[in-house]
Amino acid sequence: MSYETLFTIEWGDCDAAGIVFYPNYFYWLDCTFQRWLRSVGLGQRELGRRFGATTPLLEAGATFRLPARYDDELIVKAKVTDWDDRQFLVGYGLEVADRVVAEGFERRMWVVMKDDRPRRADIPADFREIMS
Amino acid sequence: MSYETLFTIEWGDCDAAGIVFYPNYFYWLDCTFQRWLRSVGLGQRELGRRFGATTPLLEAGATFRLPARYDDELIVKAKVTDWDDRQFLVGYGLEVADRVVAEGFERRMWVVMKDDRPRRADIPADFREIMS
Amino acid sequence: MSYETLFTIEWGDCDAAGIVFYPNYFYWLDCTFQRWLRSVGLGQRELGRRFGATTPLLEAGATFRLPARYDDELIVKAKVTDWDDRQFLVGYGLEVADRVVAEGFERRMWVVMKDDRPRRADIPADFREIMS
Amino acid sequence: MSYETLFTIEWGDCDAAGIVFYPNYFYWLDCTFQRWLRSVGLGQRELGRRFGATTPLLEAGATFRLPARYDDELIVKAKVTDWDDRQFLVGYGLEVADRVVAEGFERRMWVVMKDDRPRRADIPADFREIMS
Repeated sequence: MSYETLFTIEWGDCDAAGIVFYPNYFYWLDCTFQRWLRSVGLGQRELGRRFGATTPLLEAGATFRLPARYDDELIVKAKVTDWDDRQFLVGYGLEVADRVVAEGFERRMWVVMKDDRPRRADIPADFREIMS
Repeated sequence: MSYETLFTIEWGDCDAAGIVFYPNYFYWLDCTFQRWLRSVGLGQRELGRRFGATTPLLEAGATFRLPARYDDELIVKAKVTDWDDRQFLVGYGLEVADRVVAEGFERRMWVVMKDDRPRRADIPADFREIMS
Repeated sequence: MSYETLFTIEWGDCDAAGIVFYPNYFYWLDCTFQRWLRSVGLGQRELGRRFGATTPLLEAGATFRLPARYDDELIVKAKVTDWDDRQFLVGYGLEVADRVVAEGFERRMWVVMKDDRPRRADIPADFREIMS
Repeated sequence: MSYETLFTIEWGDCDAAGIVFYPNYFYWLDCTFQRWLRSVGLGQRELGRRFGATTPLLEAGATFRLPARYDDELIVKAKVTDWDDRQFLVGYGLEVADRVVAEGFERRMWVVMKDDRPRRADIPADFREIMS
């Protein structure tokens, strides 16, 4: 399964050079993942209720291919590209007008509360199925 | 004329109390104004080409009535509520699920470049007509 | 009592016009208030432990007098300018190189948890004394 | 040569889980690079005047080792860890209370304007010397 969503690049997302200030790309990666979860009925609150879990970041990265600017409509496509027992890798493609402007990834772990402390744990088969 | 647009409140827009970190409301006010301009064919670039103008802020403010949270769909309604010769007032209503969560305003001036310096100037009748 | 703190205006804080994207000013107002609390030993965590309280926003506003730019050192001065039983007003002066670039305010309420719900409550004399 | 700078983690930098919302780490990486440039007399404006150059991002990434929270003092250490003819790699170490909370990098290219268009170009020996 994959997920696709749209962001309009706003005036305030660009820097003095008139192009996207790059940390905003990571905001969009995170938003895309959160929207994806929500779209399958697994927003943060439901993830907590159903699995007692959160999915904090282990690693994130992006490669920037073309500048994107105010007014551009940014399409972000997401897909889980790798599953480990306790972590998974989400790959992102970012496009404006059918041209790839950036590619990114987030490596997220599966964390549950145990004795009041967050602990890494195995990803339930359910979750993996929903997002695969 | 009035304008209405939608934002999804994202995980990263909320603070450690789980509610919107308030400066983000002003980001949405600005985005709403920019989207409105764009919707009438007057994005920043076109505003520059057609009028040689920008609309910097003189003043902004907001009143917060109810907390808004991650996952909420925020509808922002905008309307110019006052016109002066060289400035105008945009009023905003922000709603989640038909309840007003906040109200805000931006007072913007009309600025054109003259001898390479930004100068306040009279708002053209055209612009006023389009946004009224 | 008053409080003063410094921010360097960063590249990413400016918009495509090369001046501060205005919602960032409100980020700095909030940061200044939080730093002030911390400087008197009352960070969010301590405020919770000692008073069981938070200070959410009722209202915020700012007037922009001069543009501020990347590299500018922004000094923010804060002072409680009005005390009510259940709310207080913080006034802010923002300066670059001894010139006022903006003025702002935040009206904050005093909120404690009661029966698991946030409720407005009277500001303790202690808190008022510390911040006056 | 290496550079070191300090950020206080602010209330608004944290998400509803009470830890830093990760895109903010990239904001701090960029700020650190900009502060470093400034500290050697090469802010964006000077970089433009002296070299006609900008240093846009090719790639950025980070690994998150420990959560960081509101009130934490974040020290970011930067060093150019690799020089190519037309690009360079900046490595970052992020620490709170002497513990590494994250590591990151930015790969930046050297871009000058030619015939009104940005073009990749060789990094001048001067710049390399200053930052090595």
